[in-house]
Amino acid sequence: MHYFSSSFKLGILGGGQLGKMLLYETRKWDIYTKVMDASDDAPSKIACNQFVKGSLLDFDAAYNFGKDVDVLTIEIENVNVDALEKLEHEGVKVYPSTKTLRTIQNKATQKLFYTDNEIPTSPFTRFAYTSEIEDSISNGGLKFPFVWKSAQFGYDGQGVKVVRKMEDLEGLPNVECIAEEMVNFKNELAVIVVRNTQGEVKTYPVVEMEFHPDANQVEYVICPARVDESILQKAKAVALKVSDHLNHVGLLAVELFQTQDDEILVNEVAPRPHNSGHYSIEGSYTNQFEQHIRAILGLPLGKTDSKVAGVMVNLVGVEGHTGDVVYENIDSILEMDGVTPHIYGKKETRPFRKMGHVTIVDKDMKRAREVAQKVKETIKVISKLQ
Amino acid sequence: MHYFSSSFKLGILGGGQLGKMLLYETRKWDIYTKVMDASDDAPSKIACNQFVKGSLLDFDAAYNFGKDVDVLTIEIENVNVDALEKLEHEGVKVYPSTKTLRTIQNKATQKLFYTDNEIPTSPFTRFAYTSEIEDSISNGGLKFPFVWKSAQFGYDGQGVKVVRKMEDLEGLPNVECIAEEMVNFKNELAVIVVRNTQGEVKTYPVVEMEFHPDANQVEYVICPARVDESILQKAKAVALKVSDHLNHVGLLAVELFQTQDDEILVNEVAPRPHNSGHYSIEGSYTNQFEQHIRAILGLPLGKTDSKVAGVMVNLVGVEGHTGDVVYENIDSILEMDGVTPHIYGKKETRPFRKMGHVTIVDKDMKRAREVAQKVKETIKVISKLQ
Repeated sequence: MHYFSSSFKLGILGGGQLGKMLLYETRKWDIYTKVMDASDDAPSKIACNQFVKGSLLDFDAAYNFGKDVDVLTIEIENVNVDALEKLEHEGVKVYPSTKTLRTIQNKATQKLFYTDNEIPTSPFTRFAYTSEIEDSISNGGLKFPFVWKSAQFGYDGQGVKVVRKMEDLEGLPNVECIAEEMVNFKNELAVIVVRNTQGEVKTYPVVEMEFHPDANQVEYVICPARVDESILQKAKAVALKVSDHLNHVGLLAVELFQTQDDEILVNEVAPRPHNSGHYSIEGSYTNQFEQHIRAILGLPLGKTDSKVAGVMVNLVGVEGHTGDVVYENIDSILEMDGVTPHIYGKKETRPFRKMGHVTIVDKDMKRAREVAQKVKETIKVISKLQ
Repeated sequence: MHYFSSSFKLGILGGGQLGKMLLYETRKWDIYTKVMDASDDAPSKIACNQFVKGSLLDFDAAYNFGKDVDVLTIEIENVNVDALEKLEHEGVKVYPSTKTLRTIQNKATQKLFYTDNEIPTSPFTRFAYTSEIEDSISNGGLKFPFVWKSAQFGYDGQGVKVVRKMEDLEGLPNVECIAEEMVNFKNELAVIVVRNTQGEVKTYPVVEMEFHPDANQVEYVICPARVDESILQKAKAVALKVSDHLNHVGLLAVELFQTQDDEILVNEVAPRPHNSGHYSIEGSYTNQFEQHIRAILGLPLGKTDSKVAGVMVNLVGVEGHTGDVVYENIDSILEMDGVTPHIYGKKETRPFRKMGHVTIVDKDMKRAREVAQKVKETIKVISKLQ
């Protein structure tokens, strides 16, 4: 059986924006794809060969979906891992493996994995229920501020909250969670590692998240990161250590903190294409989506170097706007050099919803960064004007 | 009405490989597309929003297809222009326009257009029927060798034959045709010009077709062309003159000869994405497909410069192989640096059928060219081994 033939079938759990971008690559190589998503409006619905509507967390839906595929992958970690385990036993190749998924899916387990393997990460405490946190604070076991994270099913900032005082705990769901010491970081970095089924491993360049000077929000993802060579080396080494211990197949996005003392700490990981790698579509010799396909099909990995410097800006819904989306001033950003908008195809915008991203590439990083700022100031994701 | 909204509909006549690559871009921008093709196995069938099976040359099929679209474009010139003209009158925006299509579709008309506008092209004679050619030779009006071209409906080398002796005329269809003086060229070059609805015009870099030293067949398309700056300037000037007189909207690929005396002659043009621009997907800031979409939607044109040098190799069916296609050694070429195969998704291979292409990019042109040669020597498009 060969991947580039009609007898091969690739299954993808999740039909959101990441799945959609994966499909550019399966179309490029004419690989047969079957996609499952809970929504009939999923961005991946067209461009796949076969679409199945179903909940990723439902055992039967996930199991039945995967029965007739040769290789199964995901665009989101929150899937029914029991179903995938059954499929694995029955001979379906599941990448990332259920072992990798189980380690990562639960944030408490993920943190324990780091400490067990002497991978630097911020100190944390695990709680069976959020309600236990108050006691821990009262008896001095936990100090403000800390980061509360739900152990399961967080995504896109959901399930994460900075807790600076007792009242901040109000309204949080009473679930298994962790309380993480807040890292006073100098930079937030990320490294994408890729490993194919034969164990070939490569890393992409270290990228940097640039934060808004006032709002505590990532504004730009910048490749390559503007930090010292020694930091780049350290970041890559830590990312490779995580990858090595996880022994994953496919992409692994490793989010890192560079502390004030230039220590590198692992924040968290994702075993799939990642927002921090979107620049690679325009910037890299091999983009992260093609690379993921190469890795899970056991093909040789592609060159991870960049052709040009890249800056990525997320397009998120403007506050106060809900409804049919309009990309205001998109024409104006298309006038700027090296600008490529990606529109995910979600019909409705909501405040802070990820609706797309824009990549700015240039041989000169400084110029790319300047254009990115103009892009950010120009385009607005709003709801239809009445 | 805005293009990036669900109320807009783009029609594409033709669902082959060019249409398929156009769809990467409409997916990227979530533009609603409707595609018509005569084949149920058309590569564009998935990834468009709506697929209609129908003959592009049939008036009713083309007219009915286009009635409910806002903008209509083509991936192949051989369409029913009368139907498009009716649609144009009824308010559908047709790009390229039927005026452009009528000038180009008939090769005799196209040649007359060049001479009428003092655009340099090789001398030619027009014949109502191929059978009239013999007389012209007998009475000394035409001399061997010459290039016979059917006036209508040639594509991909069909409808073209080099005639060196009387017997070469045997078997040619008795149709309207031209006999062109053979050009003893030093180089075959091409320039893609793009013009949007507002009249903004840009050119891509001049590319060079490198021929096999023995077989008379293009082996590589190379960007940028390895010719003197003065030739580049002359080639661009001629291409812009063609574009200016055609007043087309969208891409215009202008194929050129550089003669032994360093004259530039126009060979022929295509008002759509073109094989000579495939390198742009990996090589350019704005690839030709995105650029075509920008132009016909009246968006600002993108930067046409290259990020890196590019070489393109066509993947054509090996002689003696017909049937279910196999891309032999595709894994081996994926090991090489900067190599991206594109598989068009045609199920059956035939000798010389275009089944895909491979782009090789590198900061260093010499290295890209060397890898391209390795690619060419490695991958083979054959039929399924028994």
